[in-house]
This record gives sequence, C-alpha cells and structure tokens, in this order.
Amino acid sequence: MASKYLRDPVHGSIGFDKDREKLVIDLINTREFQRLRRIRQLGALFLTFHGAEHTRFTHSLGVAYMARRIFDALLAAGQVQQKGRALERTRLVAIVAALLHDLGHGPFSHLYEKVFNDRRHEEWTGLIIRQARGEVGRLLRRAGLVEEVLGVYGRTYRPAFVSDLVSSQLDADRLDYLLRDSFMTGVAYGKYDLEWILTNLRLARRGGRDAELRLAINGLKGYHAAEQFVIGRYLMYQQVYYHKTSRSAEQMIRTALQRLVDAHGETGRFPDPCPASIRRLIETRGNLPVEDYLRLDDWLFLSAFQEWALSPQGKVDPILRDLCDRITRRHLFKTVRLTADTRHKAFGQAIEELNGQFRRKGFDPRYYLLEDDASDLPYRDLAYSDRMGTAPEDIGLAVRGRIVGYMSERGISPLIDSIRNEPRKLQRLCFPSAMRSTVERRLRAFIASERQ
Amino acid sequence: MASKYLRDPVHGSIGFDKDREKLVIDLINTREFQRLRRIRQLGALFLTFHGAEHTRFTHSLGVAYMARRIFDALLAAGQVQQKGRALERTRLVAIVAALLHDLGHGPFSHLYEKVFNDRRHEEWTGLIIRQARGEVGRLLRRAGLVEEVLGVYGRTYRPAFVSDLVSSQLDADRLDYLLRDSFMTGVAYGKYDLEWILTNLRLARRGGRDAELRLAINGLKGYHAAEQFVIGRYLMYQQVYYHKTSRSAEQMIRTALQRLVDAHGETGRFPDPCPASIRRLIETRGNLPVEDYLRLDDWLFLSAFQEWALSPQGKVDPILRDLCDRITRRHLFKTVRLTADTRHKAFGQAIEELNGQFRRKGFDPRYYLLEDDASDLPYRDLAYSDRMGTAPEDIGLAVRGRIVGYMSERGISPLIDSIRNEPRKLQRLCFPSAMRSTVERRLRAFIASERQ
Amino acid sequence: MASKYLRDPVHGSIGFDKDREKLVIDLINTREFQRLRRIRQLGALFLTFHGAEHTRFTHSLGVAYMARRIFDALLAAGQVQQKGRALERTRLVAIVAALLHDLGHGPFSHLYEKVFNDRRHEEWTGLIIRQARGEVGRLLRRAGLVEEVLGVYGRTYRPAFVSDLVSSQLDADRLDYLLRDSFMTGVAYGKYDLEWILTNLRLARRGGRDAELRLAINGLKGYHAAEQFVIGRYLMYQQVYYHKTSRSAEQMIRTALQRLVDAHGETGRFPDPCPASIRRLIETRGNLPVEDYLRLDDWLFLSAFQEWALSPQGKVDPILRDLCDRITRRHLFKTVRLTADTRHKAFGQAIEELNGQFRRKGFDPRYYLLEDDASDLPYRDLAYSDRMGTAPEDIGLAVRGRIVGYMSERGISPLIDSIRNEPRKLQRLCFPSAMRSTVERRLRAFIASERQ
Amino acid sequence: MASKYLRDPVHGSIGFDKDREKLVIDLINTREFQRLRRIRQLGALFLTFHGAEHTRFTHSLGVAYMARRIFDALLAAGQVQQKGRALERTRLVAIVAALLHDLGHGPFSHLYEKVFNDRRHEEWTGLIIRQARGEVGRLLRRAGLVEEVLGVYGRTYRPAFVSDLVSSQLDADRLDYLLRDSFMTGVAYGKYDLEWILTNLRLARRGGRDAELRLAINGLKGYHAAEQFVIGRYLMYQQVYYHKTSRSAEQMIRTALQRLVDAHGETGRFPDPCPASIRRLIETRGNLPVEDYLRLDDWLFLSAFQEWALSPQGKVDPILRDLCDRITRRHLFKTVRLTADTRHKAFGQAIEELNGQFRRKGFDPRYYLLEDDASDLPYRDLAYSDRMGTAPEDIGLAVRGRIVGYMSERGISPLIDSIRNEPRKLQRLCFPSAMRSTVERRLRAFIASERQ
Repeated sequence: MASKYLRDPVHGSIGFDKDREKLVIDLINTREFQRLRRIRQLGALFLTFHGAEHTRFTHSLGVAYMARRIFDALLAAGQVQQKGRALERTRLVAIVAALLHDLGHGPFSHLYEKVFNDRRHEEWTGLIIRQARGEVGRLLRRAGLVEEVLGVYGRTYRPAFVSDLVSSQLDADRLDYLLRDSFMTGVAYGKYDLEWILTNLRLARRGGRDAELRLAINGLKGYHAAEQFVIGRYLMYQQVYYHKTSRSAEQMIRTALQRLVDAHGETGRFPDPCPASIRRLIETRGNLPVEDYLRLDDWLFLSAFQEWALSPQGKVDPILRDLCDRITRRHLFKTVRLTADTRHKAFGQAIEELNGQFRRKGFDPRYYLLEDDASDLPYRDLAYSDRMGTAPEDIGLAVRGRIVGYMSERGISPLIDSIRNEPRKLQRLCFPSAMRSTVERRLRAFIASERQ
Repeated sequence: MASKYLRDPVHGSIGFDKDREKLVIDLINTREFQRLRRIRQLGALFLTFHGAEHTRFTHSLGVAYMARRIFDALLAAGQVQQKGRALERTRLVAIVAALLHDLGHGPFSHLYEKVFNDRRHEEWTGLIIRQARGEVGRLLRRAGLVEEVLGVYGRTYRPAFVSDLVSSQLDADRLDYLLRDSFMTGVAYGKYDLEWILTNLRLARRGGRDAELRLAINGLKGYHAAEQFVIGRYLMYQQVYYHKTSRSAEQMIRTALQRLVDAHGETGRFPDPCPASIRRLIETRGNLPVEDYLRLDDWLFLSAFQEWALSPQGKVDPILRDLCDRITRRHLFKTVRLTADTRHKAFGQAIEELNGQFRRKGFDPRYYLLEDDASDLPYRDLAYSDRMGTAPEDIGLAVRGRIVGYMSERGISPLIDSIRNEPRKLQRLCFPSAMRSTVERRLRAFIASERQ
Repeated sequence: MASKYLRDPVHGSIGFDKDREKLVIDLINTREFQRLRRIRQLGALFLTFHGAEHTRFTHSLGVAYMARRIFDALLAAGQVQQKGRALERTRLVAIVAALLHDLGHGPFSHLYEKVFNDRRHEEWTGLIIRQARGEVGRLLRRAGLVEEVLGVYGRTYRPAFVSDLVSSQLDADRLDYLLRDSFMTGVAYGKYDLEWILTNLRLARRGGRDAELRLAINGLKGYHAAEQFVIGRYLMYQQVYYHKTSRSAEQMIRTALQRLVDAHGETGRFPDPCPASIRRLIETRGNLPVEDYLRLDDWLFLSAFQEWALSPQGKVDPILRDLCDRITRRHLFKTVRLTADTRHKAFGQAIEELNGQFRRKGFDPRYYLLEDDASDLPYRDLAYSDRMGTAPEDIGLAVRGRIVGYMSERGISPLIDSIRNEPRKLQRLCFPSAMRSTVERRLRAFIASERQ
Repeated sequence: MASKYLRDPVHGSIGFDKDREKLVIDLINTREFQRLRRIRQLGALFLTFHGAEHTRFTHSLGVAYMARRIFDALLAAGQVQQKGRALERTRLVAIVAALLHDLGHGPFSHLYEKVFNDRRHEEWTGLIIRQARGEVGRLLRRAGLVEEVLGVYGRTYRPAFVSDLVSSQLDADRLDYLLRDSFMTGVAYGKYDLEWILTNLRLARRGGRDAELRLAINGLKGYHAAEQFVIGRYLMYQQVYYHKTSRSAEQMIRTALQRLVDAHGETGRFPDPCPASIRRLIETRGNLPVEDYLRLDDWLFLSAFQEWALSPQGKVDPILRDLCDRITRRHLFKTVRLTADTRHKAFGQAIEELNGQFRRKGFDPRYYLLEDDASDLPYRDLAYSDRMGTAPEDIGLAVRGRIVGYMSERGISPLIDSIRNEPRKLQRLCFPSAMRSTVERRLRAFIASERQ
C-alpha cells in the first residue's frame, strides 16, 4: 500500500497508491500529460495577476486528487452501490477521466479556439486519447479504458454520477480551480469550505426508482457550504476572470494570433524565423494532425512573440511585430466599459467614425480597436440546462436518497436566486493608450463606470 | 517609539505605541476591562461550537486594533483633514471608543438583557465610563476624554466619521468579530479580504459641501470586497448565530436566569448557596449600582449553575436545579423549526394543548416549551435606517470624495439586493428531548425542514 | 455510516461515526467530560497570551481526533496486524483512551498539583474512570473497557503501540496541543507538517522477532518532518510555556492557592464567603472524594478570587486578598532571570537579605519573593528514559518494519542533538513591581539578560 | 497618495505609491524586468515540486516589497538617522536595488553559469543597469541612481545598512524566497514569523562610535524568531533545494546545455532548427552582448528542447536529442547517495569501471554518469565570512544600539550552533534508470541511505 506523494501548494500533498492507482502515476509521466506544464491554467491572466503562473499540469493533478477524494467521501458515506472489482474499476475510471479532462487544451486555451476554431479542446482530448501511437492512448488501451473514459466525458458511462464528478456544478474541476486560482492570484474570494462539502456529498435520485443516482449535496447539512461555493465562484468571475486588465491581456494575445494568420493570408509569408510547428499551424488553419497539435504550447508562442518583437524590420509583419512588442513588455491596451446602449444605431456610427480615426493614426482597427464581451450567466438552472442540452449546472439537494429540490429554485437561496436572474453583461472596448482621449471623447455617452 | 505587542490568534500581533497610545495600554490594565475576560463573545454558543471560547476581552482588543488600522489607512489615503495635535487627539478618541464599546456587557450579553431588561449594555457602558471612582473613569477624566468618547457612541462627536468607525456596516467591531468568530468556531464563512477593504476605505460626502464626511468604500475598487464582507456576515448568521443548537443553548440559559428570578418572586427564597452578587441582582431585579453590576460575569453564573445542579434537594428550586443540570451536562433542548403559519389560530390552539401535555408530564411550559424567534434583516438600506432612526447600516460608494450610491440600492449588487428584500424569519420551538415525539405529533402541520 | 461533526478551529471539523464510535460521542456528553470546559488548557497563560482561552475540553476532542487519524493512517499504510472485531475494539480503545487522558486535571492543572500534592492528575483520571457511580465509569463499564483504557495509560495494554499513540514523543496529545497552542497564542512556532507525519507513521520493532511493534516514523521519508516537529516544540517551550510573564502569572496563582491553605492553617478561618467545594478542599488538604474533586475548576477559583479581592477588610486574609486583587486586575509580578551561579553561598546570602527588605516593606517573602525554575530537558534520549523509567521519549526511525535508529542518536540530526545535550535551566525571581529596584540593586551580580 | 496594488499569493497585496515610488512602477514595466517572467525562481525544481512554477519576476516584486517593509519598520522603530529628502532618496535606492537584484539571471540561473561560466549573474545585473540604451538603464540614469544602486551591490553605498537589506542573513531576498518557495512547493518548513522579525529589526554598531550601523535583530525580543528563520532555511535546503530529485533534474538540464556546447565543438554543427539567440550563445561561448543575453530565458530553451526531442534523426546530435527527450517527458535520472569515502582510491577505480560499463551500453559517461555535490555550510559565522571576504552571514543581536553578540556564537543558540559546525556534504551520482542495478552492484560499499 505504498503511495506516491506529490507536494502541492493548495492541497498540501497529493497521494496516489502505487498499486491501486498505478495507471494514474503512469499517465502523469507521459509526454502528452507533461506538455500541460507548458500551458498556463489562466492563459493571459498572469499579465494581470502576477502570481497566476500555474499551469494545466498542476491543476489537472489537483482535479484527479479531488475526484479521488469525492469518490472516497461518497464511499465513506455509504453512497456507492458497487462492490469489489467493479467498484475499484469505476473509481479508477473517475480518477483517470478527471486527470485527463484538460489534455486537449491548446496554447492560451480558449483564445486559441477563437482563432483556430475548427475544434474545441474537448474534441482534441478525445483525439489524443484515441491516438494509437500516443503514450496516453497506449496506456489506456492496455488497461481497456479508452471507451470508458470517453464515455464519462460524453455522459454515456454508467454509473452516471461519474460524469457529474468530472463535469457539473460541484465537479472535481471546479473544486480544484476555485481554490487554486484564488490561492495563486492572491484574491481570496474563491476560498470555500471544502471539507464540509466533501462530507456532505450524496448520491440521490430525481424522479422514480428507475432514475439514476446523481451527485448532490446533503440538503439539510450541506446547504450553506454549497451556497458559499457558488457565490465564491461568482465573485471570482467578477473580480479575476472578467477583470478589465485580464480581458485586455486576453484580447491582445488573441489579436496577435489573429494577425499571424491574417498576415500569412494577405502576403503568403511567415514571420522570419518561424518555428516549424507554428508554420504548420498557419498553413493548415488549425487542421493539424494530433502529433503536431501536441507541439503547440504557451511557451512556444511567447518565445516566438519575443523573437518577433526584436527582429529587424521587414522580417516580420509590422502589425504582428508591434503587437508582440506590446505583449512582451506588458504594455497592455486600455479599456472602457460600455453601457447597455450599444445596440443603438448611434453606437454603430460612433464606432465607424472611431475606425476612421484609428486608421488615420496608423492603427488598423481590426487589431487595435477590439470589442470584448464578457457576458456570463453565473448560475444556470435546470430548466436552462435542459433547454440548451448542456451539462446540468444545478446542485441537487438530497434528503434520504432523493433529490428534493435544486439550489437555484426560487425560494431556496435568495443569494443564488439573485445571480441566476442576472446575466451580467460586461462589454468593453480595448485600444492602445495613445488613443484613449480619442475614444473617450467620441464615446462619452456610452461609457459606464468600472467597478471592482 | 517603543511599542507594546500582544500576540493575537486572528491578527498575529496587536501593537500599541507606548507613547502615543499609552492611554490605551493603561485602559487595558483596569479592573473593568479585565472583567471582559470573564464574558464570552458568543455567550452560550460555546455549547454548539466548542472552539468559541473567546471573550469580549480578546474581541475588544481586536476592535481597538482595527480602529487604529482603519484610521491609519484613511490617513495614508489622504482622507483625514485634521493635522497635528487635533489629529492625534481624534485618533486616540477613535481607538479608545473602539476599545471600550463593549465594556457594559453583562453575563451572556443579550440573554442577560432579556431577563434583567432595565438597561441595555450601551447604557451600562456609559455608566461605567462616567463612574468617578472607577479605574476607567479616572483615566478618561484625567485625559479629558469622557465626553468625547460618549459623544462617539451618541453620534454627536465631530468629525462624524469617528462614530462610523465604531458603529456602521463596516465598523471596527464587525471587521473584527466576523474574522474572530469565523476563526474560533471553525466555520469559514466569515473570512473576507481585510487588506483590500482597508486599502479602499474613503471619507466622502452625501449631499452638498456642508454635508459631513462619512466612512465609505472606494466605489470603483472596493466594491467586490465590500460585497463579499456583507455576504460573509449573512452566511455567518445563517450558519452560526442562528444555528438551531446555538439558539437552543441560548434559550436554556435565558430560561434558567428567568427561573432564578421567578422562583425568588414566588417563594422569596434564594438558592442555597448563592453568591452575594447574584443575591443583590435578584433583589434589585437588575437595578444595581455600577460596582455591583461589574461583579457579574459568565463564570459567576456558570459556577453557580454547577453548584445548584449538584446541591441536595430542597436547597434549590427544583426547576432551576433541573435546568442547571441540563446546562452543566450539555443536555440541550431539541428544536423544531416552524413554518410561517404560526399566526394562525390553529397554531395557538396546538400550543395551548401542548402546554397541557407538558404540564401533565411535569414540565412547566414556561421553562420547558420555549418559542425562539431569530428573525433578522441581514442588510438594512438607508431608507429603513432613516425611518427607524438607527445607525446607518448601508455602505456608501465613494468616488472622488462624494458618495455616489449605496451598496443596497437596487441594481448595484444583485447579491445584497437579494438579502435586503428577504427578512428571513426563523421561528423555532425548544423543549426537552423526552417531549420530542409529543411535539412532533401535535405540530406536524407547522414544522418546516431545517437547512444548514 | 452517519457521522457527528464538530467544527474545530484547528482541525476544521472533527467527525465521529455514530455507529462505530458511539461510545466516544456518549463520553463527550458526560458531566465529567463537560467539566473540562471549565479548565483552561494553558492554565494561567491567558494572562500573557490573551488568545489562550482554550480549554482541556477542546484539546481533548482534538486528541481523540488525532488518535483516530493516527490509527487510520497506520491502517491505510498496512501497519496494523489485527483484523475484524479485534481491530475494531483496539481502535475504539485507542480513541477513548486519548479522549479521556486529561480527565483528571484539576484547576490550573500543574499549579494545583504543586499545592495540593497528594495526587497527580493521572491518578485522578484513574479514579474517575473507576468510579462506579460516575457517568464515564458507567459507560466504560457497560462497554467492558475500564481495564483496557487504564491499561493503555499503564503501558500494560497490548498491542503496545496503543500506549505510544497516547503517550510518546509523537503522541496524539502533542500532535494536537502543539498546533492548538500555537494557533491560540498567535505564536507560529508550533506549526508542523501534520499530513506528512501521519502519512509516514509506521509500526516497527527494535530487537528480535519477539520485540513489540512500536510507533515510529518512516526513517527515509518522515525524517525532516519529525525533526521540524521536535524543534517546533522546543521553540514553543522557549517562547510560550517558559515566557517570563507566563511563569510570573503561574507563580501568582500558585502562591494565592498556597496562601489560601496557609491562612486557614494559621487562623483556622476560611475566607468569607467561601464556596462549599473550596472549603472541603482546604479542610482535606486535597484528600477529596472524587465527586468533590470534580466540582473544582478554574472558574470556581477565578470567581472566588474576584469576590475575595472585592470583599471588605477583615472578611478575607489580607495577603490572600491582595494576591487575588493583583490577579484579577492582571497586575503581575515582575521577573528577573538569574545566572547559573545561584548555588553559590553569596546568592543565598543575598536572598536572605532581600527577605528582610521585603518584610520591612510589608511583603511576606513566602508569597512575594518567588523562585521560579523552568528547567527542562527538551528532548530525552532512550538511555535517559530507560534509566528514569519514564515513557520513551525518542522517535524511532523505521525501515521495513525495523527500528534502525533513533532521532536523538548522535549523528542523526544535528539539530536535535544540540537540544538533547542542552538542559536549559531558566531560573527566575518573581516579585511586585514596587520591589524591582531593590531586587535589581541587591542581585546585580546574579541577573542574566532575558532573551525572547 | 494613490497607490498601485499588485495582488500576490504570498503577501496578499503589494502596493507601491504612485508618487514616492513611481520609479519602481516604471522599472517593473521595462522589457528587461518583464523578461524575468520567463525565468523560474527555482530553475529545474518544478520537475520535482510541481507547484514551483513561480518566476524571478514574482520573487523580485516580493523582494522590493520586503525591502520597503524593512525600511519602514526601521523608520517606525526610530532607527534611521536621515531625514527629509536624503531619507526619501535612501529609501528609494533600497527598494530599487532590491527590485533589480536578480535582473542578470540567465536561463535556469545557476545551471547556466556552470556551463557558460564567464560571468556570474551579478555581473550581468551590473551590465544591464549600466547599459545606456536599455530601458532600465535609461530610467536609472534619468533618476541619477545608476552608481548608487551598483554601490549597494558592491557594499560601497552609505548608509551601509542598505546593503544589508539587499544581501545579508536577514535580507529582503531571503525573507521573500523562504516564504515563497515554501508556499509554492507545498513544503511548510520555510514559514516563519515575518511580522515579529520586522517589528524587531534594529540598526546597531559593532565596535566604537565610528563603526557603521548595520542591520541586526533586537537581542532581547527577536531572538527566537531569528532562530526559527535560520532553522527554517536549513530545513528547506535539506528537504527542497537538495532533494535528490531536485538535484537530478538540475543535473539533467546542466548536462543537456553542456552537450549542446560540446556537440557544436565536436562537429561544428548546430541543432536544426536552432533559434538565432541560442546559435549566438554557442558561437560566443557565452560572451554575448547584453542585448543578446537578454533574449535568453527558460522558455526559449525548454521550447527548443521539445523541438529537438521530436526532430527527425540526423537533424540533432543524438545525445542531445536523447537528453531533451528525457527532460521533456520528465524521465529523470535516478540517484544514489554516496558515503564520505569517495576520496578513496577504491572509489575512483569503481567509477572508472562504471564508465566502461556505461560506454558499452551506449551511454557516454560524460553525460550519463553525473557526480552531484550539494555541499553546504548552512550557517557561516562572522569569522568565516571575514576570512573568505564574503558578505557577512551572521545575525547581530542588538541591545540599545550596539551589537552585543551574534546568533552563531557558541552558547547563544544551541540549534544554530549545531548546524554551524555541520557542513553537510551530500554527494550523489545521477544516471539513467536502465543503469541502476549496474551502479548499485558496483558501488554497494559507497552508497549511503537517503533521508528526507
């Protein structure tokens, strides 16, 4: 029963059993999983919160650990019906699926998807896992778990609660990232009462005997802890993920990636020098074979950005070069927050005029006047999820094996009720500081005050 | 510039300057202030949350420290207009008023007031401070600060923001007790971002030039930190202060005190033995001279309760003896939570019948069937405060020296908005566990489920 | 598998299984165990470290919880040989013995023993457990565990490692108190890496096959964590337990208790009023029946001290009255630290002279010039323990089931080596501040500087 | 008095005044300082402690913040003699020197220096600061602070204590890195009582009136906090910096860099592709102009390592390719710890034989059988520093302005005494796991057990 322990800044130490969980340890030591060390958890946000240097690698370890703790907490509370080898296998599937859930992330995660938008990271995860020659693929195939892990992601795996462990309002992913992002950014809003939640997790049914057991919270004892967790997540969104400087940094990296593609489209030329893997990415517009996709990471791009920023004139497209220079030196675009009136014709006109003013100053508005829309629905209730066909986002309240209600139902929690009904739309414009007064003058009527 | 440092579990260390703040150090070393070591901050709640053994003494030190930090944060942010000696004096008044604000608390704080209800603890604080022979009174008189400190409590002191420091939504009292109660109970909900709040405190005006500067939060940067603070306080109320066992423990101590008074009223006899100070309290029904009031504390009563629980029959009123026995052994009353229908006639009838059933089992319903009402208005907006004449409870949002809005205004914070409109009424019955099935059977229609 | 959870400031939450550990929950709800709420963990130290208000009650809950965690960590690491019901019983015995280990503490713990020195608290614990009419005794008898629990304390219980769990260098007691005292005093030195130690606890043999399995630390992985723990304990002794003001506060309470006894011896009179239980204590010089002993606690005495301090002249012995007044107002004695030369004749002469000077000023030197000796051997090695017949104090280093060495052996840890060889003797004098210059003048040659 | 606040995982938030400390904010926003985001604080240690992803950038911000806090703590304690503008300037010099002290670090810090060993990072710092065209250089020149900052590093600046702030046993660098490394690795040993140390810092003289004031600790109150700090640092060395896997990871990166140079020396060819900046580095053997040096960072190399690991045969030297592959997949070399007998002839012979065995298996022993020597003198006393001409490493104990002794003197602290006299030499061999049994068989007599 020896264990491998990994020291972790958030969880103290993360242990995996060298026998029961050998597959987990082997998966960590694959090339594909180690690659996650080169993709930051919060993409461009390290430019706003300097401590946010943590990667998908540390986060994924944390998620696997959380999945194990959730599973064992359910076991200790007598909630899991399987026994013996079947139980052991389900447990392993849950931990492995949690470990690998972010495997397909590209450089800067969501930003990459916006520019090279043929596939979302979930699809890449599937491709990597199925890849016969890959190290992860080989290990999973040997263990006979490929379809099972993919089934967890696709919500076809049974028992169904395993999918909830990996993706739901109280999943292992959120339980880890909320603590970790809070810890690393230095913003305390994401702290919540982990032990109390673990103690009060339950499996319960909504509907008759045939309905499946789903992950839920003890409706009598875990209520306030779940409430705090949801509110903490909301506050982290407001204060960290949607922070104006965070959004500006993200927009700048996105626009640099966009210009990289567009410049090649316009001129047929690559920046000089250009790493082979980036070259292939541009040529294929993201339609890469898996092996090539796996060569891409944050570091590759940020190193290239630096080279391009410093390269002699003529070697690199001047807009790309300028954007890379701003990113490398952290000279971020300024932002203004817009009022809700942006659908008005007058707003469209104002933007048109600004575009002209930007062009006259030598700023191509496609890359220098960026609209940013951080709309969010902080808490989606069940009706919404059903309608949209998305993963259930609501937290069930369990009493004696039955889900007797949901956190977001009217009258249950006034706090959650309030954010359920409040899709806060944060619209902003991002632009070089040199254009600040021009923008502010022209848009005076549409600028809202920014609250943090 | 030597300082006296006191190690503190919450704040690490609390320092007071041996020159500038000598009066503070001297006040700590008075008999009246040392007495606060014998009154627990959370009264009966240690019977529910075993770690909640902290006293008004440690809390009051924390409040003085918080007041100093608030004042110095305002100074560092260039918010205070006074200078030189006037400034120094205002600062000292603020710290001293904060230190002494709980000086008048009686045993079990609010419970005592309910039984011996001639004076609230604020009045006792005033009497103690004015008391010429007292150590605190003598020190304040020598420093010429008696009226100034009382003026802070009465909101007549100028500059007016000093009263806000001691009593408002963001006062030194709440800033300390939320952290301290959270820390000591082991319930994490009260943690908030203290440093960020301190950094963003401002003095600002609501209304024209003549309006006074009040304590407010930087409307642009401090918004979410203030939001988190208010929500944290709400969650602590739900989870700690209004916890069913907390309320049961409080009711039991209250009813024991009540029986102590009533038994003397009925029989003219005191329990035997009975400390002189308790004897005088009963005889005067709380109309004590200050010196005698200062002899009363939690320990005196809990020691007496133990003696009475163990005393031979006949020496102590049997109801009192039984209640003391239950408290001493922590055999607390059970509770049920009632639905909102308790104003119905049917409910009154049910209680009537239960009274009879209790009497038949030998339980005097006056002391064994207790109605508990933990109604609360978690966040009062300004209109409410104005109407009720209470201290302003709302947090002003300051932008460039002006209060441009309040946290509780509609549309500012959906979270706070939601609890502003939700006076959660928690009505419960408390009774011996032996009567549980009787109560549950009779009141089935009126019992709500209890969520924590 | 429902559990009872107690929120705890140090451990977050402490859970006991309502089935497997029902006895533990029942024992907590006895009169004898609840009494520990009225005895502070650190006796008089709250007068120095104002946060140190925690009691033997919270500590004992923590020790039971630690014992359970140690036991389950050993189980998880495959170290325990028993199975089934035998295992279950051993586990319960370990937790119960841990829970009750401090049951016999009197008011102010060690101070009480110094004045009423017929029995140590361990003996009282035994008496309370054996007491047929007591609630604890009845519960243990019904469970058939009386002799087993006493056997754990007496080191006759088998398996032998259970005694190590309750009393050894790495026992549940120390694991809890170091964290708790550190947490509550606000002095950070006692923090150590609990999770790593739990993970690396082992059962191992020293000597041949017949030797018994003892609690030890994984010699390869747990080494530095154990080192840190021992050093942390050493630093807490230097900085908290042996702090000059701590010792002064302890000496004052001890001397007040002593004068209480002596005054009765000299005059045959009790203070007026005097609680019956204190009266009996004095009359019997501590030879109390168990029921009477259990009525004594910190609160009883501190309430009495306050009454006596405020009572009219003539009602209470004047020395006792004065000492109680100083304690109640926290006017503590000053201290000087003495050099090592106190065995010299010259020192004895100086003390003689000081005695005279004290007497001339009206201070009876028996109660106003107190010698305090905080000698300590911070880490006793095995040879020492063997020689003295005390519990083994050394930490064994386990490699594959065998103890291959001990932490204190020469060459293993230079840090522990250094304090093993260093019985730091802290000798001090305590006296009223009015006598400071007299003492300092007379003893100049014997005063050492005090380092903290 | 507006401030810029940076959220920080260790310090909560780091604030700099937008007026007084504008230069600091400007320096942070230079290309040279932003480059530190691409150099990890702990080099290769993220391969052992997965959380250790923090960079020289976050650390340097922490050091500047610590320097400011130390300076202001000394001010508040009345220790600084300067006033007005002179004081303000000294303060700024201290903060700036602290901020920039790591500016010259190359990729993987110390590992780079071992391979390209013409200049230490301190020299590069000097060159960067003097560089007329650089952004840092320009800002410092404009502020007239170039020579002053360099004087702090060279210990010629007066007042002399400013150099102690930046480099001494209690400098801002150590105060930050101990907390930060502890926090990020998840190893708790580096936590110490920062507030208490700050409160007790003093300026004091050793020697007569003409001697200079140096940074020291209050000899009476700060003693144990300083002791804990030194011990914490020792434990972090044992447990983190000298951890066997840490050392293995470092050796692998060092040997890959070495092979990069050697392969070019042997064949005259570069790996294909090879970033221009690495090409120039190899050609010049490290004799780079400052601008080129500043293009080098961890990311550049780790991205290149990945490319080389995946490049087709023939494009990259096979040994380099293999080493890069192992690093990218984290297939680290195994280690054995050697006994002290390695100076024996027999050991030399054994290594000779192993070299042959490695060669026969296709492992060039220059890159696959690596000797690692982690010798350390954890605490150097003053005599040692004087003799070696290094910066003073000892902590002075200040009493009333004079240094009355040093922490490392015999008889002051047994703990520090013990590590002062114990230069722990950790010698290890690192090699591919395929060679483990070969190595263990051949070296059996020289292998010591590894304790962690």
